[in-house]
Amino acid sequence: MLNVQDRDVHQCDSGWVPVFVDQDKSISLMSIGFLLEKPDDAVVWRGPKKNALIKQFISDVAWGDLDFLIVDTPPGTSDEHITAVESLRLYRPLGAILVTTPQAVSVADVRRELTFCKKTGLKVIGIVENMSGFVCPHCSECTNVFSKGGGQELAQHAGVPFLGCVPLDHQLTRSLEEGRDFVQEFPKSSAFPALASITQHILSVASRSS
Amino acid sequence: MLNVQDRDVHQCDSGWVPVFVDQDKSISLMSIGFLLEKPDDAVVWRGPKKNALIKQFISDVAWGDLDFLIVDTPPGTSDEHITAVESLRLYRPLGAILVTTPQAVSVADVRRELTFCKKTGLKVIGIVENMSGFVCPHCSECTNVFSKGGGQELAQHAGVPFLGCVPLDHQLTRSLEEGRDFVQEFPKSSAFPALASITQHILSVASRSS
Repeated sequence: MLNVQDRDVHQCDSGWVPVFVDQDKSISLMSIGFLLEKPDDAVVWRGPKKNALIKQFISDVAWGDLDFLIVDTPPGTSDEHITAVESLRLYRPLGAILVTTPQAVSVADVRRELTFCKKTGLKVIGIVENMSGFVCPHCSECTNVFSKGGGQELAQHAGVPFLGCVPLDHQLTRSLEEGRDFVQEFPKSSAFPALASITQHILSVASRSS
Repeated sequence: MLNVQDRDVHQCDSGWVPVFVDQDKSISLMSIGFLLEKPDDAVVWRGPKKNALIKQFISDVAWGDLDFLIVDTPPGTSDEHITAVESLRLYRPLGAILVTTPQAVSVADVRRELTFCKKTGLKVIGIVENMSGFVCPHCSECTNVFSKGGGQELAQHAGVPFLGCVPLDHQLTRSLEEGRDFVQEFPKSSAFPALASITQHILSVASRSS
């Protein structure tokens, strides 16, 4: 998605040097994908090894002076989530952004993630509804492929902010597929205003808390 | 998806009685969802507890005489996968069906799952490409929302059977959302022939191996 698939992680005196996406080093990345010898290598690891690496990604990477550290977790409420929350507690994280599709099965998963946030004392910044309707590029009609409104209903029910709906957008998926710059190339796409508004919301939460 | 969200699991002399989807008891289900007191309960479990429950789901459920036992795992190659493969080895499983979307990031995950199957000696029945194009119900034009052909290319590259492409189909997603009988109600939908052909392939592998 960010065009970094062949890049390597190096060591310096203060730890692992993350992979920089652009020349300005405005986005730096760390992923187990950079540590595999071959891209096909399976990471057949049980929880304890995963947990040790997550801790290392927080403490042993030369992150430098960051504005935001974004941790993209798998779905669920298991090892990765428990370890990330425990390891980051010291740094007082801004909170969690929960992403669901409109479907009942996905909303049910995120409902359990809300309970997890409550149990672990992690603030919920808000809920995003992804894959929220598809506007046909041929006829401009919208089809709610995966139902509609599940994310918004859940946010109301749980009393947390609803951050917005991101539609299925073939220009966004193409950008991610080809590692292109969506913001520069597709400012008129249907997903753009949704993503811009979600980002604004998160930035305003961050500025209030700092 | 199967309209069983409020059902409970009971105990009998030979173990847990699974939840039956229909009166004929032709499909029986077991899921941690049935064991939670409230549907919002988060399962904040690290690997060892998950592994113990997976083993119980195989050994302590009164499954009866099954034609097929289908284990639906999360993506990845971690605790759930290692434990399921280890616990089922004794029963000589038919193999794994790997499901990807056409996108490069999803194909890369499934490539690692192929390596996992090779390492653990699990036969690969084949690869399915899901979310493979969307046919607009208004204008009948097809959009490859998530790219196209990634599953087929991976199958060729890995030398395993390609089982077929399942399109994004709003009649299928609606059936799953509302717990309706897709096979009975939507035999003319675009996903139907794809699913029928994949099922035929799996049945023929099963009949050859028995």
